[in-house]
Amino acid sequence: MRLSQYLLPTLRETPADAEIVSHQLMLRAGMIRRLAAGLYSWLPLGYRVVQRVEQVVREEMNAAGAQEVLMPVVQPAELWEESGRWDNFGPELLRIKDRHDRDFALGPTHEEVITDLIRGEVRSYRQLPLNLYQIQTKFRDEIRPRFGVMRAREFVMKDGYSFEADEASLDRTYEAMFEAYGRIFSRLGLDFRPVRARTGAIGGSVSHEFHVLAESGEDEIASCPSCGYAANVELAEAAAPETERPAPGEELRTVDTPGAYTIAAVSAMLDVPADRTVKTLFAEGRHGPVALVLRGDHELNEDKAAAHPALGGECHFLDGHRVKQLAGAEPGSVGPVGLDVEKVTVVADREAAVLADFVCGANRDDQHLMGVNWNENLPEPQAADLRMVVKGDPCPECRTPMDTTRGIEVGHIFKLGAKYSESLGATYLDADGREHPMLMGCYGIGVSRIVAAAIEQNHDDAGIRWPEAIAPFDVALIAINKKKSQRVADAAEAVYAELREAGYEVLYDDRDERPGIQFNDADLIGIPHRLVVGDKGLDRGVYEYKARTAAESEDAPADGLLEFLRTRAGDV
Amino acid sequence: MRLSQYLLPTLRETPADAEIVSHQLMLRAGMIRRLAAGLYSWLPLGYRVVQRVEQVVREEMNAAGAQEVLMPVVQPAELWEESGRWDNFGPELLRIKDRHDRDFALGPTHEEVITDLIRGEVRSYRQLPLNLYQIQTKFRDEIRPRFGVMRAREFVMKDGYSFEADEASLDRTYEAMFEAYGRIFSRLGLDFRPVRARTGAIGGSVSHEFHVLAESGEDEIASCPSCGYAANVELAEAAAPETERPAPGEELRTVDTPGAYTIAAVSAMLDVPADRTVKTLFAEGRHGPVALVLRGDHELNEDKAAAHPALGGECHFLDGHRVKQLAGAEPGSVGPVGLDVEKVTVVADREAAVLADFVCGANRDDQHLMGVNWNENLPEPQAADLRMVVKGDPCPECRTPMDTTRGIEVGHIFKLGAKYSESLGATYLDADGREHPMLMGCYGIGVSRIVAAAIEQNHDDAGIRWPEAIAPFDVALIAINKKKSQRVADAAEAVYAELREAGYEVLYDDRDERPGIQFNDADLIGIPHRLVVGDKGLDRGVYEYKARTAAESEDAPADGLLEFLRTRAGDV
Repeated sequence: MRLSQYLLPTLRETPADAEIVSHQLMLRAGMIRRLAAGLYSWLPLGYRVVQRVEQVVREEMNAAGAQEVLMPVVQPAELWEESGRWDNFGPELLRIKDRHDRDFALGPTHEEVITDLIRGEVRSYRQLPLNLYQIQTKFRDEIRPRFGVMRAREFVMKDGYSFEADEASLDRTYEAMFEAYGRIFSRLGLDFRPVRARTGAIGGSVSHEFHVLAESGEDEIASCPSCGYAANVELAEAAAPETERPAPGEELRTVDTPGAYTIAAVSAMLDVPADRTVKTLFAEGRHGPVALVLRGDHELNEDKAAAHPALGGECHFLDGHRVKQLAGAEPGSVGPVGLDVEKVTVVADREAAVLADFVCGANRDDQHLMGVNWNENLPEPQAADLRMVVKGDPCPECRTPMDTTRGIEVGHIFKLGAKYSESLGATYLDADGREHPMLMGCYGIGVSRIVAAAIEQNHDDAGIRWPEAIAPFDVALIAINKKKSQRVADAAEAVYAELREAGYEVLYDDRDERPGIQFNDADLIGIPHRLVVGDKGLDRGVYEYKARTAAESEDAPADGLLEFLRTRAGDV
Repeated sequence: MRLSQYLLPTLRETPADAEIVSHQLMLRAGMIRRLAAGLYSWLPLGYRVVQRVEQVVREEMNAAGAQEVLMPVVQPAELWEESGRWDNFGPELLRIKDRHDRDFALGPTHEEVITDLIRGEVRSYRQLPLNLYQIQTKFRDEIRPRFGVMRAREFVMKDGYSFEADEASLDRTYEAMFEAYGRIFSRLGLDFRPVRARTGAIGGSVSHEFHVLAESGEDEIASCPSCGYAANVELAEAAAPETERPAPGEELRTVDTPGAYTIAAVSAMLDVPADRTVKTLFAEGRHGPVALVLRGDHELNEDKAAAHPALGGECHFLDGHRVKQLAGAEPGSVGPVGLDVEKVTVVADREAAVLADFVCGANRDDQHLMGVNWNENLPEPQAADLRMVVKGDPCPECRTPMDTTRGIEVGHIFKLGAKYSESLGATYLDADGREHPMLMGCYGIGVSRIVAAAIEQNHDDAGIRWPEAIAPFDVALIAINKKKSQRVADAAEAVYAELREAGYEVLYDDRDERPGIQFNDADLIGIPHRLVVGDKGLDRGVYEYKARTAAESEDAPADGLLEFLRTRAGDV
């Protein structure tokens, strides 16, 4: 492609409204432009990357035995009512009415549609398993779209769904998809990690997320450097404490803590470390109110709390008014001591449950208690894993201290089990003629998000550094001052023809721009291999070659250029 | 692909709700399934065809210098308000509201979005021309979706848009797209014809449609076998009559025609041929009422009527009540004689204007006039081309009698001129620093419709006969009774491996079905080349080969199979 004819509007300035580096660089490199909040047009350079990602995904999905389909973006409400998600999905599901006033949704995911399709076509165990996928535009009406294509409302996704006769078959497909995902992200040239994850709105039992590791990632991942355990901190289990609760050593006493309503303030005022204090949060699920007690330096994991039987699947925090009714004080001064056990269930994180002589709110405004001991000053609590894991926590499998890293979720696979097949009635007959609901798995990859994640992981101050597999072009060819030098113009044309003939995708900068602008644009758009044709080099029979990731350039012989490039492939 | 593992739900019965053969065969061959009115899921076999079509389109568009982009499906209302189409597009534009109650549309076409993109990026004539396209899901809320994917609400389209500095540049791009479209439809293996067309809702001056010729086509095309003139009958010019109006020979007289309210009835009752009668239609455009007079055997072309200055761009028929007010009779008995020229403008088709001694309604219920003559019994009318051309009409360019054929519109290219660039303010500066609106062209191809059109053109009683370029697989391989014959099973596996190794896409029917079912399915899904492995052939060292389009099968040597297939490629 000749740059003079290419729609590649690069920007020198960093756009003010782009918060993260991938968003900034995608705008600056002329890959995308914003149409409206969370809606982006992909320009030619950007769409080339999308297509390269799609191609790798498609090849590996096909190789793993999946079959490509295409389902409608617009989905009838009836199916979402059957599955129960019309009411439960929330406002991210954009509901629309057609000209006949019938209800539809813009598809954020396709479990309902594919299950409807399969229930109509599959009758027998002999037709199973089936693994179907599509690469398609999705819409989720994010309340606060941001970070460019990283959290857009409209995006390109690969979503796959498998249908199985039994658990063993589901296990095999899930494993095959797990392996295929590893091959996909490896081929894309990304540093990634599969982690155990919560199942969220899609539902099901087992799930893994695939994260591209990057400091800017929204998700925190806990991983064990020893045994390989890795999980989203939203899910990661906090290992049970190894120490037992010490014997009580202090007397209970009430102290004034005027204006100290946070752990940090209380800890400072009383000169007690945060890990000797507890915080108490009041929540309600499907049953009555629950007081959740955590060590002062720990954070509540809402998923874990919701999963506790006392909350029964939901976790809604009580407002200050109700907290005062139950505890007798404002939220900054509450604690577990003296609560009415008829009205409030106390559940303590396992680390809070092994404390002795601790500090907590006194349930009287501007007062705290010191020297508090379970089983002496208040009843023994129910103990459970309620907290987020933190760096250094012991691995729940081998007790090695864990690392935490940040990641960008680009893939997610789930064992859905019979969640959708039961609600939608997708059943099959086994060899004995008995009817069963099919078991399902679902397998997603955020195709457009991968483009942004790749940039978050691969960039420097000058711009993007594309992995070879998804670079929009293989080679950036620059002609220096070709307007003044016919020799340069001719040589550059010859190189352009030679490289294209050899199968390279080449972006030929044939503009009459200053070399500085040409080099800056090449660095910005980040093509892995750069060749410069200039008079100085031609005097010596060479071009200037530089890998985007290399610090220095080197000579590439005009004779034997292709051989030279072959040795550099994979270097970047 | 092994058929035993493939989602290919073929149907023996013709689905009752499918009216046209492509819709029937796509359902029967397991290519598509209906999700809701006008919404179809593409199953694996069908989606393979879509992808093959897309690939040809993409290659030829790129070769012609166009650049691929991807714009959002969801478009903000503001842009459609700027262009004026938010109000004018009608209910086919599905209007939606997001969670913040802001107005959006599901994109039926992307002139507004691409013009908005380009007005933000292009400033100078040096950046022009630009030719951008996308292959994308579109939505049009058809009031009566039908014929499967032929007239669906959601469909895959290639839409392209060019931006030019001047008419000469637009002409060059338009010509390049015209040529590229020819290459695309030729490569797809379709019998097609480019025809002049009206510009319709998209607007602009010049346009051509590309039609796949098929008896079931919704459009009628008039074409000249001599000079190559071809046009949609909606647009085709009716050549001016060569004869002058004869001298009047009859006296005007009134006759009773009780119950005769159609040309056929009047013609029969009075024993006058239809081409000696006229019909009179009352319409209104931007000015006052107009009486449109046509020869009894001709049909009004509404586009031509609307374009007449008396109507001024719009043509709305008057209801019976208003007709009676103006003419004094019910619509079945009206005519041009005695109308109040202050209130009604009379415009006659050129063929009606050269009649003498004709028959028309008397403007009194159940009466007609005979022996009517222009300029004697009523004023000389304005004469214009108002009618649809019919088979045998003289070519407007060379007067050879024209043929009419039916076609399915699969492509449409337009010179838009400055329609969108002016309303949206997409301007550039010329070499002298003067500002001009860009000129635009737009270029559409109905990707998913092509799949149906190809079937309409290529099928027989047994099923589909795919052109090689878009066949879902190259070869259908059938193993006969492999459950009983290990030799057959082994040989079929070997052929399957050999063909795939050689680069063929093979659908291997490895099911334990009766041969009759296997053959019927192969004919139904229409793969161009069929190879059958059976014991009888193996005895003689051959497989049975049959092209889908051939009447008889023949022997293919087991040794030298690839060479044999190479000689058969392109035969179908």
